[in-house]
Amino acid sequence: MRIACGVEYDGEPFFGFQIQAQEPTVQSCLQKAIAVVANHDVIVHCSGRTDTGVSARHQVIHFETDSHRTDWQWTMGINKNLHKGISILWVKEVPDDFHARFSAISRSYEYRILNRSVRPAINRHHLTWIAHPLNHNDMHQAVQTLIGTHDFNALRSSQCQSHVSVKTIHHAAVIRSGDLISLRVTANGFLHHMIRNIVGTLLPIGKGHKPVSWMAEVLASLDRRQAGMTAPPNGLAFEQVIYPEKYDIPTIKSSNQD
Amino acid sequence: MRIACGVEYDGEPFFGFQIQAQEPTVQSCLQKAIAVVANHDVIVHCSGRTDTGVSARHQVIHFETDSHRTDWQWTMGINKNLHKGISILWVKEVPDDFHARFSAISRSYEYRILNRSVRPAINRHHLTWIAHPLNHNDMHQAVQTLIGTHDFNALRSSQCQSHVSVKTIHHAAVIRSGDLISLRVTANGFLHHMIRNIVGTLLPIGKGHKPVSWMAEVLASLDRRQAGMTAPPNGLAFEQVIYPEKYDIPTIKSSNQD
Repeated sequence: MRIACGVEYDGEPFFGFQIQAQEPTVQSCLQKAIAVVANHDVIVHCSGRTDTGVSARHQVIHFETDSHRTDWQWTMGINKNLHKGISILWVKEVPDDFHARFSAISRSYEYRILNRSVRPAINRHHLTWIAHPLNHNDMHQAVQTLIGTHDFNALRSSQCQSHVSVKTIHHAAVIRSGDLISLRVTANGFLHHMIRNIVGTLLPIGKGHKPVSWMAEVLASLDRRQAGMTAPPNGLAFEQVIYPEKYDIPTIKSSNQD
Repeated sequence: MRIACGVEYDGEPFFGFQIQAQEPTVQSCLQKAIAVVANHDVIVHCSGRTDTGVSARHQVIHFETDSHRTDWQWTMGINKNLHKGISILWVKEVPDDFHARFSAISRSYEYRILNRSVRPAINRHHLTWIAHPLNHNDMHQAVQTLIGTHDFNALRSSQCQSHVSVKTIHHAAVIRSGDLISLRVTANGFLHHMIRNIVGTLLPIGKGHKPVSWMAEVLASLDRRQAGMTAPPNGLAFEQVIYPEKYDIPTIKSSNQD
């Protein structure tokens, strides 16, 4: 049977989601903890991989098992055996055609910038600090250019392995609350480093070094060399993922904002 | 001359504010960094000491120096030499009669509880996790009992060294936002572990194990043994401190909420 879980994690202690040579990764920790409860090895699939240092408030994963446990036994058992930087929020049996990655309709990310003259102490691993005053209205206007279906080739990593670079952005906004600036983007999917490259292109616009219209130029160029530098991972968090209603996957995220 | 600074710090890496055998403490880190910029040893006084694990969003300190630097040179110089878990927010020369501790009129703390069935991953060092559902309205009602001038002997640590246990609470509120419950208290001053003991007494009320009226009974008893267990330090943060207007001390805190 197939089991889906909602997962929250702090990106700071991990070398990203995906298993690789360097430990710990979120996937390796999840697989080890689930194996203890399931009594057999498992492979964990996620809705969207995250880079080193990137947190998730509501990631969704799935795995296969023949072991019978209640949802609550899975939740408590996995959390008990899991790295403290990861927490299982809920567990639910799903149909065999559900896939955490391929069934997803949309994903949302948030990127947070602390815009003040002095560096952050509190929350310093989960913010990008920009001392230069940023015009968030210009940044908001610029990011509106990206809404809709476009070829985002100019805004993906040169190492991105995706065969297609066309994605659809449903929602994009830049909001300021005091000295905290937040970019929120919802899309059907994201290319490698896409959000960090969007932020890297918004920053020169926010600083007034480039006009608002520069975002449209970069997008139209389809050329990675035209975009801004990839922004650091610290400010980035995976917010949530939406699936077709038939799967009845929980969407209400926790108020646990770091 | 006397210099005052606004300071933000993450309580997690420190053994509290005050210098002691275990390192690092916030005071020891500040004194070392300031000494580099001042070119002489300094003693740092703060508006209110914080325990191990307690963060501060806007602590105020002062020190004496004969070295002449601009406010900006002090700020940048100290931050450059300081532990990354501490940040100087502003620097200002103050009259010789200003004292970070003794001139303060009021201090505000916040205590944050994550009230959900599963433990937090994000922000886990800065929250107290309570799985049992809490009635925040009952907690809010109970904490109203404490507003005004009272002998808080029942709610201070048995190790509290203050000769007087009478304090005046100006404001106290328990607010819920989703699964995050926040207690905010402003008083002319606080006794050792006073907030953590208030929280420890609010928790059995929130759980329904004790009636709302229990807070008044505990307060009236003047007996530490009547109060609830001291709540963990993780959820606690020093929010801000107010001084007489004549000193013109900045009060606007950053939006950097962890």
